[in-house]
Amino acid sequence: MFNKRIKIKELLAQEPAGQTVTVMGWVRSFRNNQFIALNDGSTNNNLQVVASLGKFEEELLKRITTSASLKVTGTVDASLGKGQKMDLNAISIEVLGDCDAEKYPLQLKNRPTLEYLREKAHLRFRTNTFGSVFRVRHALAFAVHKFFNEKGFVYMHTPIITASDAEGAGETFRVTTLPLDGTAPKNEDGSINFKEDFFGRTTNLTVSGQLEGELGATAFGDIYTFGPTFRAENSNTARHLAEFWMIEPEMAFYDLEDNMNLAEEFIKYIIRHAMEHNREDLEFLAQRLADEEKQLPQDKRSELGLIEKLEFVLNNNFERITYTEAIDILRESNYNKKKKFQYEITGWGMDLQSEHERYLVEKHFKKPVILSNYPKEIKAFYMRQNEDGKTVAAMDILAPGIGEIVGGSQREERLDKLEQRMAEMHIPAEELWWYLDTRRFGTVPHAGFGLGFERMVQFVTGMTNIRDVIAFPRTPGSAEF
Amino acid sequence: MFNKRIKIKELLAQEPAGQTVTVMGWVRSFRNNQFIALNDGSTNNNLQVVASLGKFEEELLKRITTSASLKVTGTVDASLGKGQKMDLNAISIEVLGDCDAEKYPLQLKNRPTLEYLREKAHLRFRTNTFGSVFRVRHALAFAVHKFFNEKGFVYMHTPIITASDAEGAGETFRVTTLPLDGTAPKNEDGSINFKEDFFGRTTNLTVSGQLEGELGATAFGDIYTFGPTFRAENSNTARHLAEFWMIEPEMAFYDLEDNMNLAEEFIKYIIRHAMEHNREDLEFLAQRLADEEKQLPQDKRSELGLIEKLEFVLNNNFERITYTEAIDILRESNYNKKKKFQYEITGWGMDLQSEHERYLVEKHFKKPVILSNYPKEIKAFYMRQNEDGKTVAAMDILAPGIGEIVGGSQREERLDKLEQRMAEMHIPAEELWWYLDTRRFGTVPHAGFGLGFERMVQFVTGMTNIRDVIAFPRTPGSAEF
Repeated sequence: MFNKRIKIKELLAQEPAGQTVTVMGWVRSFRNNQFIALNDGSTNNNLQVVASLGKFEEELLKRITTSASLKVTGTVDASLGKGQKMDLNAISIEVLGDCDAEKYPLQLKNRPTLEYLREKAHLRFRTNTFGSVFRVRHALAFAVHKFFNEKGFVYMHTPIITASDAEGAGETFRVTTLPLDGTAPKNEDGSINFKEDFFGRTTNLTVSGQLEGELGATAFGDIYTFGPTFRAENSNTARHLAEFWMIEPEMAFYDLEDNMNLAEEFIKYIIRHAMEHNREDLEFLAQRLADEEKQLPQDKRSELGLIEKLEFVLNNNFERITYTEAIDILRESNYNKKKKFQYEITGWGMDLQSEHERYLVEKHFKKPVILSNYPKEIKAFYMRQNEDGKTVAAMDILAPGIGEIVGGSQREERLDKLEQRMAEMHIPAEELWWYLDTRRFGTVPHAGFGLGFERMVQFVTGMTNIRDVIAFPRTPGSAEF
Repeated sequence: MFNKRIKIKELLAQEPAGQTVTVMGWVRSFRNNQFIALNDGSTNNNLQVVASLGKFEEELLKRITTSASLKVTGTVDASLGKGQKMDLNAISIEVLGDCDAEKYPLQLKNRPTLEYLREKAHLRFRTNTFGSVFRVRHALAFAVHKFFNEKGFVYMHTPIITASDAEGAGETFRVTTLPLDGTAPKNEDGSINFKEDFFGRTTNLTVSGQLEGELGATAFGDIYTFGPTFRAENSNTARHLAEFWMIEPEMAFYDLEDNMNLAEEFIKYIIRHAMEHNREDLEFLAQRLADEEKQLPQDKRSELGLIEKLEFVLNNNFERITYTEAIDILRESNYNKKKKFQYEITGWGMDLQSEHERYLVEKHFKKPVILSNYPKEIKAFYMRQNEDGKTVAAMDILAPGIGEIVGGSQREERLDKLEQRMAEMHIPAEELWWYLDTRRFGTVPHAGFGLGFERMVQFVTGMTNIRDVIAFPRTPGSAEF
């Protein structure tokens, strides 16, 4: 067994009192041949290790380079230097792994750009920025499970490989064990015989666990999913990933208002958790964002700093308006009258573009907005039809700087209405027999929503490119690592 | 907003004192036109709703069939009946959703078999058995996150779609957007031009997040993954799934013994969590298992009941022996001498078969066993080579009734030894340049393991077929729902 080491986060929480400890970590910097900033990933804060002059061999000191790994035993004393409360005065230093400064890709004179670091995604966790981003991501993920567990929701692992693409949420990836070179078994009519494929039918990667989640909700009452979902869309933007994680709660005996209440409570809960557990990471990221925005023209900068923005979200109710009200606001806006929108406000029935959503949250309300009761023509078949015959009980939550972060609805629980809508929208009912069974046998009013986890991580960390909040982003043309 | 309802689990924890409440749920049974057993999925325990004779219309009572959904408001009083502490004396009953007894697939005279319920996986959550199984699954999943969060591990979402199949852990599923009919773009030599595929290369579904996990561990110190993994193997058995969930922690500055200690602590922690939070579900499942085993011959039955087995695991150290010791035990066993093994014990160097592992845990030690230091020839390239030149620092944990539940190792952190082993095993080093970088730049001793989540759920719930512990099993020829 390894000699007991102490994690740096734990050590920094102690009072320096001459205690002897052993730490292990990676060198962040080495100043004056004497002061080593050591980091072990448990916190963004480095431990200052002091290698007293003359105490260690020149040969050893030469090997203390950025990202070399060390095992250090020493005594902990109050620091004489500024900015840290303790020093570790080294008694012994062992280099566990060397790091050739000439070859190390992150050994740069200038601070490496985020773009450069994306190409070095296997090492970028060792930087302060990505250290903080991924510790915050962890905190948010844990808070998701904690929130739903406390409320008695059952965590469901809905399938990743699925034969149903009935939802039509987007382009899918095919999953197959058949060859692509034309030698796959064929039917008499020349089409591929998918009965010979692994699952005996065509299969693809899931775009959403919602439909299966509803099967759980109509037995357990409350369930949630938290798993990967996929879109084979050729969108090479800072907002899209081909593989991303979604959280999809689904609740029996909930109507649209219950759904909105839960979503707002949920978002605030996970932000509060990160604020309480990762304050230092968030403060670092706030400073990073402020530095980044200094390079932008004044009118492109955020009005609030990152921490202030999160506190504002925690302390204010989300604005709740209907789609119809939103169209009125947009139509009457100076922005519209001055023709500043790229996509014109044509009136009721139009789909809102990202610029319209951002106008509502960033210019008009300056806070998260819950939009509800959209025209049925622009929403999915499973959303509950309102009495007006025109709208469905849908709700989207829009966040400043991000746009849509949650999409949800009360589900259509009435078999006849659901079947009618599916027929109108050419959704094959026979493929979804199992989904319709929940409406046949003891149907209940129910609702649910989906939250894109990476967009949430972006919102909390202030990272502007979605590729910087997932470990190894999958995008068109890129599946490295 | 829906009238405030109370969940049945919460209500049953109260004292009956004439309070008025509203509950919603599904009918489990309706006796004597008067006593409704209502279940809302929050617990296996039903609430007894009393519809006093003469108080409700005959028309309404006829609609109270198995799995119909109800909203009931009533007063809570101490029960006169046996087996429950309270009755809900109904003031009003509303049928939210009817359930036609003639058509409902689970409306059976005899108890439906597990095989039958697998075909009705969309409804099986409504049975006592699957209600308990999936609530226990939830408890175990939550305990996984709680355990690692408390220890300061970072939860990493390693990629599902991956271009690397270098580990060679098994057959993979291809992920593609190219057509299969022979019209996919080709290179001059006639092979498929995968530069034209979505990711610009061949991609498949991950078999393990370990290699990417190591990238995280060598920055954060301690990380874990909990995500889906895939095997395209044509194994139609009660032990295999094409899609299953794995937990893979990876720890810097851990050796093999640290690794074993963590794995044992982890397994006990999550079992203890389920025992503390889902006692009633486990007691139900224990009874179910005992009933099932009554149909088996005496020598095929478990020596311990389910609860006793779990308590035994919690209260005893796992047996730790080396592979070499295991071979000696097997060779000297009466089982071997009487030639009861299907696969002969040929001696040191042989791979252990499932029957050998089960002999060790079920017959010889009668407890979980950690086997370590296997011959390098039968283990993966990344495992740390021991000083003897013959073995690697691997460890597997074997559990009674299940077999291998954990596989792990200290990883080879020495670049030269790793490259040499990769060359010997024909692992393409150029594809794994990013993995090797961790050994080039500040390498550290580290270790990790993988735990198959479904096998763990089987162990705790006593379900003998792995298809009964995942919501919608994916197996050869089957991707329904």
